Amino acid sequence: MSTSEFRIERGTDWDVPVILNLIKQLAEFEKLGHEVLATEDILRQTLFGDKPAAEVLLAHAGDTPAGFALFFTNFSTFLGRPGLYLEDLFVVPEYRGQGLGRRLMAHLANIAVERGYGRMEWSVLDWNSRAIEFYKSLGARPMDEWTVFRVTGDGLTSLAGS
Amino acid sequence: MSTSEFRIERGTDWDVPVILNLIKQLAEFEKLGHEVLATEDILRQTLFGDKPAAEVLLAHAGDTPAGFALFFTNFSTFLGRPGLYLEDLFVVPEYRGQGLGRRLMAHLANIAVERGYGRMEWSVLDWNSRAIEFYKSLGARPMDEWTVFRVTGDGLTSLAGS
Repeated sequence: MSTSEFRIERGTDWDVPVILNLIKQLAEFEKLGHEVLATEDILRQTLFGDKPAAEVLLAHAGDTPAGFALFFTNFSTFLGRPGLYLEDLFVVPEYRGQGLGRRLMAHLANIAVERGYGRMEWSVLDWNSRAIEFYKSLGARPMDEWTVFRVTGDGLTSLAGS
Repeated sequence: MSTSEFRIERGTDWDVPVILNLIKQLAEFEKLGHEVLATEDILRQTLFGDKPAAEVLLAHAGDTPAGFALFFTNFSTFLGRPGLYLEDLFVVPEYRGQGLGRRLMAHLANIAVERGYGRMEWSVLDWNSRAIEFYKSLGARPMDEWTVFRVTGDGLTSLAGS
C-alpha cells in the first residue's frame, strides 16, 4: 500500500452527501446499517443550520474522501468544564494503516485543548479489538465501570407521558 | 417517612450554591468526591453564561433542595437528530422512595419529546444495582456492548501535541 497525503478540514454543507456516505459505511462496519435514518436534508439542517448540533472533520486523499470525525460538546459536572465527545470516527478501509486515525484523534485533541475542554470521550463496540488497542495506544482509558442506558422511540414517549 | 410535595423548576444562577452542593453529594455517593473540581464561579460561568454548556432541573420539597438533574444535548449520527444526555441525576437520601427520581426522568423525557429529540441517554455505575433496576423499570436498555473511552489531563495534552 502506498502512503497517501491526507488533508483534514472542517466539513461544510457542500460535504453533506460525502458525510452521509461515510456515516453509512461506518454503520455497515458496526453491523448497524439498519439503524441509519439520517438523510442529506436532515444532516444539512442539523449540522449546518442555525444551531449546529455537532461538528465534522473531513479527511481527503487528493479528491477522494478518506475518513471523518463527528463530534459535539458535552459537559463534566465534576470538572465544571465542557468536554469533547467524539460520536463517530471512521477511516475508509483502503486508507487504513497509514496513520490517518491517529492524525484525526490528535486534531480533535488539539481542538479540545485550544477550547479549554477538560477531556475527550467516545464509545467503542466491545468486539472491535483493533479499535480498542488503537485507543489504548493513544493513552485513553476504558471507563469499564460505567454502562450507558438509553430510552428511545415508544419508550421515550411513554416515559414522557408517565 | 411522610410523603413530600415536590416542585421541579429550571435552575438559575441564583441556585448555583445549591447545585454545587448537590453535585458534591452525588460525587460522594459515587465514591468520586475527590474528582470534584467545580466551583461556584466555574458553574456560574459554564451553566449560566453566554453559551450555557448544560441545563439544570432543581427539585424542592418546600424550601429544601430535594434533588437535581443536569443535562445537555448530544447528537445521534444514525438518527440524524439531537438527543438528551443526562449527566447527573440525584435525589437527596431523605427524599428517596417517594417517586421524585421517576418524576425527574419523566420531566426530562418530556423535554426531549417536545424538542423532537430522538433519544435520552445516561451512564450508570455498574455497582449501583438500585439505580439499574430503577432505570430498567422506566423502559431503558443498557448498552452493554459499548464501552466509553476517555483521555484527560496530561494524556489529552500529549495526544494534542503528537
